[in-house]
Amino acid sequence: MENIPYKIYLAENELPTAWYNMRADMKTKPAPLLNPGTHKPLTAEEMSGIFCEELVAQELDDTTAFIPIPQEIRDFYKMYRPSPLVRAYCLEKQLGTPAKIYYKFEGNNTSGSHKLNSAIAQAYYAKKQGLKGVTTETGAGQWGTALSMACAYLGLDCKVYMVKVSYEQKPFRREVMRTYGASVTASPSMETEVGRKILAEHPGTTGSLGCAISEAVEVAVTNPGYRYVLGSVLNQVLLHQSVIGLETKAAMDKYGIKPDIIIGCAGGGSNLGGLIAPFMGEKLRGEADYRVIAVEPASCPSFTRGKFAFDFCDTGKICPLARMYTLGSGFIPAPNHAGGLRFHGMSTTLSQLYHDGYLEARAVEQTSVFKAAEQFARVEGILPAPESSHAIKVAMDEALKCKETGEEKTILFGLTGTGYFDLKAYESYNDGTMTDYIPTDEDLAVGFASLPPVPEYD
Amino acid sequence: MENIPYKIYLAENELPTAWYNMRADMKTKPAPLLNPGTHKPLTAEEMSGIFCEELVAQELDDTTAFIPIPQEIRDFYKMYRPSPLVRAYCLEKQLGTPAKIYYKFEGNNTSGSHKLNSAIAQAYYAKKQGLKGVTTETGAGQWGTALSMACAYLGLDCKVYMVKVSYEQKPFRREVMRTYGASVTASPSMETEVGRKILAEHPGTTGSLGCAISEAVEVAVTNPGYRYVLGSVLNQVLLHQSVIGLETKAAMDKYGIKPDIIIGCAGGGSNLGGLIAPFMGEKLRGEADYRVIAVEPASCPSFTRGKFAFDFCDTGKICPLARMYTLGSGFIPAPNHAGGLRFHGMSTTLSQLYHDGYLEARAVEQTSVFKAAEQFARVEGILPAPESSHAIKVAMDEALKCKETGEEKTILFGLTGTGYFDLKAYESYNDGTMTDYIPTDEDLAVGFASLPPVPEYD
Repeated sequence: MENIPYKIYLAENELPTAWYNMRADMKTKPAPLLNPGTHKPLTAEEMSGIFCEELVAQELDDTTAFIPIPQEIRDFYKMYRPSPLVRAYCLEKQLGTPAKIYYKFEGNNTSGSHKLNSAIAQAYYAKKQGLKGVTTETGAGQWGTALSMACAYLGLDCKVYMVKVSYEQKPFRREVMRTYGASVTASPSMETEVGRKILAEHPGTTGSLGCAISEAVEVAVTNPGYRYVLGSVLNQVLLHQSVIGLETKAAMDKYGIKPDIIIGCAGGGSNLGGLIAPFMGEKLRGEADYRVIAVEPASCPSFTRGKFAFDFCDTGKICPLARMYTLGSGFIPAPNHAGGLRFHGMSTTLSQLYHDGYLEARAVEQTSVFKAAEQFARVEGILPAPESSHAIKVAMDEALKCKETGEEKTILFGLTGTGYFDLKAYESYNDGTMTDYIPTDEDLAVGFASLPPVPEYD
Repeated sequence: MENIPYKIYLAENELPTAWYNMRADMKTKPAPLLNPGTHKPLTAEEMSGIFCEELVAQELDDTTAFIPIPQEIRDFYKMYRPSPLVRAYCLEKQLGTPAKIYYKFEGNNTSGSHKLNSAIAQAYYAKKQGLKGVTTETGAGQWGTALSMACAYLGLDCKVYMVKVSYEQKPFRREVMRTYGASVTASPSMETEVGRKILAEHPGTTGSLGCAISEAVEVAVTNPGYRYVLGSVLNQVLLHQSVIGLETKAAMDKYGIKPDIIIGCAGGGSNLGGLIAPFMGEKLRGEADYRVIAVEPASCPSFTRGKFAFDFCDTGKICPLARMYTLGSGFIPAPNHAGGLRFHGMSTTLSQLYHDGYLEARAVEQTSVFKAAEQFARVEGILPAPESSHAIKVAMDEALKCKETGEEKTILFGLTGTGYFDLKAYESYNDGTMTDYIPTDEDLAVGFASLPPVPEYD
């Protein structure tokens, strides 16, 4: 065994003091968000009714490479960061691979995932602006929990719209959020105009992130002193999540490790965008090369089967248009268990990078993901979230390829969180009742039919 | 803010290489386990039908101060250790106390608690002896989960008898254990003779740790190739758990910190015995002094209202007699939520130390514990287990006393685990339906009536 510890922890004084903004180094910038009525790029003024001001500035800034992390946020980060960079010695041994596998583990906090990195930033700026509270949606519940924690810490009100299927599958998530003082509503609900409309059109729907976003935005814009916050997709979120990649790179540099392949699961792109940030920066600047693989569920294949087009971020079509890989806001995925990966679209930044060939994408099926999760849990001692397990599956596949070829590649993947609140999914896997779902081309056609007409900008 | 980080992590090469055995430094040794038939001290031979051989040796050894940790166990420890020693800056600030509060956080592993420290040791020695598998009981489920993880890692069969009330309150715990390949049975069950007998006598019982122990022991002694393992109470468990205290002391020494008060929750005593070990060693040898406080639930007050007497460790009265603070093996506690603290007895080592005045004890009520837990969660960002929250409650009480007196005491407590699988309990607290239960003297009399006649040894 080499001289690299099982877990590399940075010291507190080695923690990043600024976030890194990938867009600053992109030659082709991601397209701006468009006003759905005028088809013109959304101005800061238009955005400021939805988001708080500093976040609007971060959302629009595609030239500043490093944005300082306020001291208050860095202090909060110290409660659960640095997160460990783990060398998967036990997994390597079990696979019999010459590959060296590392994972950045973001699950060691009560929200159970990396979501807290952006939640505290967004809550901090809302508080700084003197707002009363924030609204949001949550799928698997990790984002909602993270936001509840951040709001409890800062004394902000927090209203969470939780995708109904997750609300029902994960009653305990609701209680964590309540313990942190948040109000939690199953979405679609009868509390909002858009919720009532969706329920009238689809009475039996188990909801979607797109629906929940519509409800949360409606509540934010109709209640004074409230703004909407979002756990993924947006540029600001990828910016905050860059702390994952910056810590990872600092830890790797310390030990002279250079990854050949970087793997992350991708729903809206927050984890993947954060993990790859400084590595992609080097790649964009031509300083280094890395293979980067986005892993998505075969049941919701935005990258691998979606279209690169302007689309609504929400089902209710009240949000701005974003140019991204999308299945169409009308696509309602099967209620599979990777709740956090069921968004119809994808971060505009990652979409542009994918479009320009800077990253690859792979879609994997649910049962194969849980099989990998179980194997990982038994040897590495961590019960992974279903979302994270998508990355585990592909990391194991790549490590097994190295076993065939004899290549000693260094594989890095993001272990975004724990599966403690996903035991219903594990139960169905344990019972052998879990099924795979791959949408047919006809299923996808329904989603694509919901795409808006191509705006003039394009 | 001082120069002490939020979290102190030891490096891997600073991890303990030997466990510390407090008994070696005790002038009055804890009484030996007695054969319930002959009332003679249990011999190694008698024990070896229940426990594996090396564990028997550890159980009986009250003279060797340091016992080396085998390399395989140290490698496993590296998967989740060192655990952080956290400076509770945020809690101190919120309480407005001049006290300095530290906690050793053992919840950053999938079992969710410190139990894994002994589970891997016990599973390792069972494997080394060539056994097929192990049986055990579990209350809150933390021990069962820990043992399942250790057995999965080593390829041992694992049969868990889970106290019925926890089995029903915590279905997700069962799924974690199943994911790690264990079989889980609600106790009392119809699978064992003792289970059938208990069910015949108490048809509606929600079970107890004492019942579940009886069942697990019966299965171990009647199935060739199986032994019984236990997550608390025993000397061997306290020995393995000393890794908690050794790490804590090493981290504190590194920064020149000396605790004035050390606080831990106490069910069977595994966490408290482990946390205090090296500190108590100094106290026993007269090298230093520390106030040590054991915290137990008012609903199951072994230390504060129990008797120091020889008693059975199990309800079925098939286990050896141990001299300990006990409520009587016939005491069946109310089904409150601190599942891991509902054992009728207490570690013989801690019992002797308490009897000899080396530690204090305090009983606290459930709702006050959850109030402290909620406050802690909101400022420190960790959702604590109900068991651990007993220690939080008393640490906060002591910190508030310092606020009154202006004393800058250093308070150390053990945060044994997370409450992710205790959300039903949090739900009842959030809903305001949680109640307190304090047994009357008449309730206790029922338990005391079950005490066996005083054996000749005494």
